[in-house]
Amino acid sequence: MAKRADPAEELARPAGDDTTTLSHQRVVRPSEKSGLPPGSLVYVGERPPGEPLVTAIRFGPAGYEERPACCIEEAFPLDPSWPVTWIDVVGLDPATVRAIGKQLSIHPLVLEDMLNTRTRPKFEVFEDHVYLSLKAIALDEPGEELRVEQVSVVLGRNVVISIQEAPGDVLEPVRERIRRDGRIRQLGADYLAYALVDVVVDEYFAVLEQLDERGDSLEDQVLARPTPETLRDVHTLKRALVEFRHALWPLRELVLRVERESTPLIDPSVLIFYRDIYDHTVQMIETVESLRDVVAGMLDIYLSSVSYRLNEIIKVLTLFSTIFMPLTFIVGVYGMNFRYLPELEYRWSYPVLWVLMIGISVTMLLYFRRRRWI
Amino acid sequence: MAKRADPAEELARPAGDDTTTLSHQRVVRPSEKSGLPPGSLVYVGERPPGEPLVTAIRFGPAGYEERPACCIEEAFPLDPSWPVTWIDVVGLDPATVRAIGKQLSIHPLVLEDMLNTRTRPKFEVFEDHVYLSLKAIALDEPGEELRVEQVSVVLGRNVVISIQEAPGDVLEPVRERIRRDGRIRQLGADYLAYALVDVVVDEYFAVLEQLDERGDSLEDQVLARPTPETLRDVHTLKRALVEFRHALWPLRELVLRVERESTPLIDPSVLIFYRDIYDHTVQMIETVESLRDVVAGMLDIYLSSVSYRLNEIIKVLTLFSTIFMPLTFIVGVYGMNFRYLPELEYRWSYPVLWVLMIGISVTMLLYFRRRRWI
Amino acid sequence: MAKRADPAEELARPAGDDTTTLSHQRVVRPSEKSGLPPGSLVYVGERPPGEPLVTAIRFGPAGYEERPACCIEEAFPLDPSWPVTWIDVVGLDPATVRAIGKQLSIHPLVLEDMLNTRTRPKFEVFEDHVYLSLKAIALDEPGEELRVEQVSVVLGRNVVISIQEAPGDVLEPVRERIRRDGRIRQLGADYLAYALVDVVVDEYFAVLEQLDERGDSLEDQVLARPTPETLRDVHTLKRALVEFRHALWPLRELVLRVERESTPLIDPSVLIFYRDIYDHTVQMIETVESLRDVVAGMLDIYLSSVSYRLNEIIKVLTLFSTIFMPLTFIVGVYGMNFRYLPELEYRWSYPVLWVLMIGISVTMLLYFRRRRWI
Amino acid sequence: MAKRADPAEELARPAGDDTTTLSHQRVVRPSEKSGLPPGSLVYVGERPPGEPLVTAIRFGPAGYEERPACCIEEAFPLDPSWPVTWIDVVGLDPATVRAIGKQLSIHPLVLEDMLNTRTRPKFEVFEDHVYLSLKAIALDEPGEELRVEQVSVVLGRNVVISIQEAPGDVLEPVRERIRRDGRIRQLGADYLAYALVDVVVDEYFAVLEQLDERGDSLEDQVLARPTPETLRDVHTLKRALVEFRHALWPLRELVLRVERESTPLIDPSVLIFYRDIYDHTVQMIETVESLRDVVAGMLDIYLSSVSYRLNEIIKVLTLFSTIFMPLTFIVGVYGMNFRYLPELEYRWSYPVLWVLMIGISVTMLLYFRRRRWI
Amino acid sequence: MAKRADPAEELARPAGDDTTTLSHQRVVRPSEKSGLPPGSLVYVGERPPGEPLVTAIRFGPAGYEERPACCIEEAFPLDPSWPVTWIDVVGLDPATVRAIGKQLSIHPLVLEDMLNTRTRPKFEVFEDHVYLSLKAIALDEPGEELRVEQVSVVLGRNVVISIQEAPGDVLEPVRERIRRDGRIRQLGADYLAYALVDVVVDEYFAVLEQLDERGDSLEDQVLARPTPETLRDVHTLKRALVEFRHALWPLRELVLRVERESTPLIDPSVLIFYRDIYDHTVQMIETVESLRDVVAGMLDIYLSSVSYRLNEIIKVLTLFSTIFMPLTFIVGVYGMNFRYLPELEYRWSYPVLWVLMIGISVTMLLYFRRRRWI
Repeated sequence: MAKRADPAEELARPAGDDTTTLSHQRVVRPSEKSGLPPGSLVYVGERPPGEPLVTAIRFGPAGYEERPACCIEEAFPLDPSWPVTWIDVVGLDPATVRAIGKQLSIHPLVLEDMLNTRTRPKFEVFEDHVYLSLKAIALDEPGEELRVEQVSVVLGRNVVISIQEAPGDVLEPVRERIRRDGRIRQLGADYLAYALVDVVVDEYFAVLEQLDERGDSLEDQVLARPTPETLRDVHTLKRALVEFRHALWPLRELVLRVERESTPLIDPSVLIFYRDIYDHTVQMIETVESLRDVVAGMLDIYLSSVSYRLNEIIKVLTLFSTIFMPLTFIVGVYGMNFRYLPELEYRWSYPVLWVLMIGISVTMLLYFRRRRWI
Repeated sequence: MAKRADPAEELARPAGDDTTTLSHQRVVRPSEKSGLPPGSLVYVGERPPGEPLVTAIRFGPAGYEERPACCIEEAFPLDPSWPVTWIDVVGLDPATVRAIGKQLSIHPLVLEDMLNTRTRPKFEVFEDHVYLSLKAIALDEPGEELRVEQVSVVLGRNVVISIQEAPGDVLEPVRERIRRDGRIRQLGADYLAYALVDVVVDEYFAVLEQLDERGDSLEDQVLARPTPETLRDVHTLKRALVEFRHALWPLRELVLRVERESTPLIDPSVLIFYRDIYDHTVQMIETVESLRDVVAGMLDIYLSSVSYRLNEIIKVLTLFSTIFMPLTFIVGVYGMNFRYLPELEYRWSYPVLWVLMIGISVTMLLYFRRRRWI
Repeated sequence: MAKRADPAEELARPAGDDTTTLSHQRVVRPSEKSGLPPGSLVYVGERPPGEPLVTAIRFGPAGYEERPACCIEEAFPLDPSWPVTWIDVVGLDPATVRAIGKQLSIHPLVLEDMLNTRTRPKFEVFEDHVYLSLKAIALDEPGEELRVEQVSVVLGRNVVISIQEAPGDVLEPVRERIRRDGRIRQLGADYLAYALVDVVVDEYFAVLEQLDERGDSLEDQVLARPTPETLRDVHTLKRALVEFRHALWPLRELVLRVERESTPLIDPSVLIFYRDIYDHTVQMIETVESLRDVVAGMLDIYLSSVSYRLNEIIKVLTLFSTIFMPLTFIVGVYGMNFRYLPELEYRWSYPVLWVLMIGISVTMLLYFRRRRWI
Repeated sequence: MAKRADPAEELARPAGDDTTTLSHQRVVRPSEKSGLPPGSLVYVGERPPGEPLVTAIRFGPAGYEERPACCIEEAFPLDPSWPVTWIDVVGLDPATVRAIGKQLSIHPLVLEDMLNTRTRPKFEVFEDHVYLSLKAIALDEPGEELRVEQVSVVLGRNVVISIQEAPGDVLEPVRERIRRDGRIRQLGADYLAYALVDVVVDEYFAVLEQLDERGDSLEDQVLARPTPETLRDVHTLKRALVEFRHALWPLRELVLRVERESTPLIDPSVLIFYRDIYDHTVQMIETVESLRDVVAGMLDIYLSSVSYRLNEIIKVLTLFSTIFMPLTFIVGVYGMNFRYLPELEYRWSYPVLWVLMIGISVTMLLYFRRRRWI
Repeated sequence: MAKRADPAEELARPAGDDTTTLSHQRVVRPSEKSGLPPGSLVYVGERPPGEPLVTAIRFGPAGYEERPACCIEEAFPLDPSWPVTWIDVVGLDPATVRAIGKQLSIHPLVLEDMLNTRTRPKFEVFEDHVYLSLKAIALDEPGEELRVEQVSVVLGRNVVISIQEAPGDVLEPVRERIRRDGRIRQLGADYLAYALVDVVVDEYFAVLEQLDERGDSLEDQVLARPTPETLRDVHTLKRALVEFRHALWPLRELVLRVERESTPLIDPSVLIFYRDIYDHTVQMIETVESLRDVVAGMLDIYLSSVSYRLNEIIKVLTLFSTIFMPLTFIVGVYGMNFRYLPELEYRWSYPVLWVLMIGISVTMLLYFRRRRWI
């Protein structure tokens, strides 16, 4: 079997013209990609990619150093005087990803996943590195759709590479902690990788709270005076919850797998922190499910109260119709021009008729009162 | 690997300015906390915290002693002449929690959980203590929302520490039993911990019964004469059930884990009591699910009976319209002022017309009777 | 660990005043019980308890003997000349339960369960006895709510104790079989215990059939001519199904556990009969689920047919309105008293107008026919 | 333990009067059976049983022989010159079942199951025979209810006994194959048993297709012009699906158990064919679930389109009312008989009024057009 | 047991007349097939089959050769100078399938599955070949139904046989890659089999995207101005999702089984690629579930907004009716011809009446404004 070509190696080798085409930074949708060989490095997503920004942050108990790099190659080989190197890449670009893959000998399918922002969160353990991707979620305004961005983290020996789709402040708190706080600097690359995951998941709480508040305010509206706009907002909220849940479930699996699949790259004392993220994820899932229940209830209430108000309106219509239709008929009778219509000649016809009509009206009203319509 | 810093130790050490800030008793929402390093001791909840009340209750077969303490430190080291010491803390405060953590060497993530009242119920076994947190539930009034409070219990060797968010009488029955009843005083700290959990779960039954009664009374209303207020109440009940279920499910898991994860701190003869709590929890879950089914049915019935009554009203409207519209048209015909309108001159026109009109009305009524509208 | 007090023993000992209070046969609801120590023997249920009736039935291949006993104590020690003794207790009473517990050394939590009629069906294996509780279900009338009663069975060596809440004929068939039929008398106490469970579960079939028939008759009503009473009945049926299911699910678990947890008290040749009960239970669960589906469908149909009939009524209303409104307007025109209204003077105005009005009516009718409203 | 009576043996022995009663072929419903000892051989089902028809089919590679038998006893002992004997019983009758039980030493509970047509499909392995029961399903007409019949198969050494409730052609294809086709005659009794199961399951496909077509045709009706009859048909289809599913799920379990529980009576080369049945069952379950989804959708569409058409009708009503009500009012004004009503005297009043009324109508129509009602 | 006939062998042998009949290429529906012995090679599907097209593609690192073959037999024995032979069959035909079965000694049940296009996706491992079938999905137009085609792949030693129902370009990208790209030619038959599966699954993404876009556009329509056509489209989309899901779920299982069931025919370096397909499948399943949620929400919104608009229309109707009915009555009063009707004679009656009528209208309008109807 030694002569057999390893498909991963074959795929890693750039193969003529189509790779050249792919290095153009085109926005490719998955369906357009279909038919290309697996392992093709094409960016799949919605953001027009620009030149990626690479920053190398090196730190240790002694201090830290933060400097921009032109490219991945500039950061390697690692400087052994710093215990941890964090290479922070912002912007997805096949060339950069290929360079990362080359430095850490990453499987071509993993590189493909880094570029495909539609893949599910993943955790994969290799001999000398660990690959982990997750979704950063943000909500610009409560009534808006969720903004989802892929964050990939590669944990190697003494090195962490993080790759974000677009510039954003998701990972900023970690940078801040490295700058300000002596503690994170005392710990290894595995703790740094955890800190990155933790900060991304923390953002979920913020989004969930916004959705929760949105739900409360919509609930009030639905119960008070629902309009089609309310309905639209309920639907938007529902969609956001569907998407949020869509992001949460695989995250839960992922964290569980981190705990279970042992790798020497992650120390047991750091693993316990993933348990914490797991608990948070489960808690958020439960909250989302409760919110979904509540939102589903809103639609029922909307429908019910629209029906109820229809009843109220129809009651008024029926009230007027049933009172005035007989009266109009009666006055119509005495508007006829028959030559022989005896009542027209009587002296008390007119006042008697009024008494009669008032009697009819009162009877109707009493009848409606008895039926509890008024 | 010996040189490696243990992240838990690192986190336990107070690290400069941000800890100082945290000791101010601010109400922090989870989203505001995001970005802080894990293990940061910040209170997360909705109650403005005050000075925590610490009471030390020591007992044994011989008797008991109950005295307030200024602080956690005053209660340590334990007095070996009393077999069991219960330190009852009311009010969440980072400083107190830190003191507890220091006395019993508790992991910083556990301390964080104590302060974060939004975490799920938990059971965690350590070498020389057991951590257990659960939610106390109360319902001020049936139509109101649930009041949820976190209760944390730390079981050490011969010591139990309970921490409540706010003063309440949830744990009062246990205090009473220690004061009055000789039996609980004969048993160990593990039984005391169980008794605390049991008394909290017992409260759930009271809440569930209130919800059940509320459900029955709403059901009667919905079937008798539903109004939008009924609908609102049904929705409130539904929300309360969602929340209640939200609290019950993790409790079930928790009790199951207590049974399964063996620790020398809990004697097997006490473990059997947890089986009892487990049974209660499952029973409550089943009742909640049944109630949810019933509540869901109420909305259907509301909608159905509103629709049915709409039909009834529309029937009356149609009845009057279809009888009086033709009649009004007919009398309108003979109200016209045409010079050549022969019927006007005939002697018997008027009575004949009445006969005709009564005939039309009777025909309509018979038609409606045949269609079963009246 | 020998010095340690066993909590079960502690609880078994009557402890001063509160037990005295409890021996008054008060109807206690679970919430009122909260705060009492676990193992407190208080009756929890809805039936006002009376003096319990104790009957001892002793039998063997040789014959049988049936005699009432004043109390539990009278039946002990067992008469070894009879292979099986069945102590049949009707009526729940803390004193009697305590006596049973004393004779067979039953765990106080089990005694508590016997008195608490709200607990779930249970099966618990102890060294020299087996505890089993289940719910007897009856349905007085199809449109009524289910009547649920707790039946507890304790199987000891050569003795079976059955405890029912209230006098009823649930266990009567077993008594009959002992009196009439030689076969059951040839078998042991384990088979008797099985026979008691079997006869209780057999009753479920009768109830299920009543519910099924009720479902069929309601289905016909809903499809033929639904009224709000139908809706109410559908809802009552739905509730009964919810309750029935509530009783069935734990029963299924229970029987499964009987099969799995081996105890020398139950012979394998008897165990196979529990498999039979298990099959019945699963079959009933499936039938209940199907019925629930059907009932859920009824509500949809109710709503749909109410809506459909609304349409029919509104069509008639619209038909009359659209035909007679224009006509009434037209005759109104020629009822005006203008001095200069030329058509009034024409010879053929009146007949022409009739032709016109009939034309309008026919046109409208044709239009409605084309739109398929009539 | 040797002295102990085996309950199965006890039950197998006919026990005096009640068995005599039971041999009358009464149609007993399960609830009526409750109270009888387990193992009582009573027919439970809806078909009035007649004299059962017994046919013995013997075959081998050399040929086959098919002859009616008066009773079970006539077919035993087996003729060793034929490799396989198939005893085909049509009609359920306690006496016949008892005879079968006696010949093959079958457990009394199994005999009870054969007679009780309400039991779930079963597969039970005994030392020298295998019991298997399943439901044959047929659908006379698409709009009708399912016809369900129980088929029991007992596989012994070189013998297969099949028992059907009523004469039908379900097993006819197998008989045909034995008559025509040399292949099935070359194989053993285990393959024959498989062939019987296979032919019953094949019928399910036919029923499923009928239901599927029914679904398609109803879908068209619902989308085109729904009537209450459509609704009724949708409901009937839904019920049929519920029942079909009710029959499919246990079948799936059954086939899985055949594969897993090894018995020397079934050769591994035959077992692989059960895998095939399993695949068919799963495929049918998936199709049924999809159909259920589609049927559920139909009810929504029914309701939605009824609502939509209500809107259309109400629009027409509103259109006419809002145009003709003001006009009728106006002509009513000039129909008043006031002595001092100046407009009546003007020369151009009448034409001006027409212009005014036409203007009002056009304005209304434009308004409605703008609101997109017409 | 050596004498025993193996049923598979028996079935493989053509058995007289019925096989001859079957070789006619009839379109057989499963129900028509029922009663035939298992393993009968009959085409089950909807496409009228034609003459199948067989193409043999041979390749290796050195180059490739692509030539049409008259039939399967022409392609065997394999040419050992080419490392991989791909026999690409388009068109299902019992004779061709039988020939394939003969060349690779395939089990008759597998051959039956190849011809039955209604079977679920399958993966079966045999000693010297692997059988894998899956569904190719296409969507001609977004509003249309899914087009599903079965693709079977047999992987033997150095040979892959693919069988499609009808000519299509599903596998074209793989052919293209063999022609253009040197890499796939370097790898073995197992990678080719993977590439075929991959290209089929890639098509699913394209379909899913079309469905997703369809969902978005329908959502806009439903929220803006729903019509019955929208409803029909929503229903069609729902059905397509049901079918899509129906195809996805077994695919997921299939890929999982490929990963788990080890066979020497698939190299571990290729197995890792199946993990990739698995991830894609799970991702698509999640997306489909989310879409189903969204589509379910659309129906609710449709219903809600139809109800809301009904309310709006009814409000206008009620407004006009309640204003003009009293006015029409009033003018009717003074249109009466009573001899003694004093108001008719007064000088200011007419203007006063106008003031009164305007007053009534304004009052009504104010009332409606207060109730927020206008």
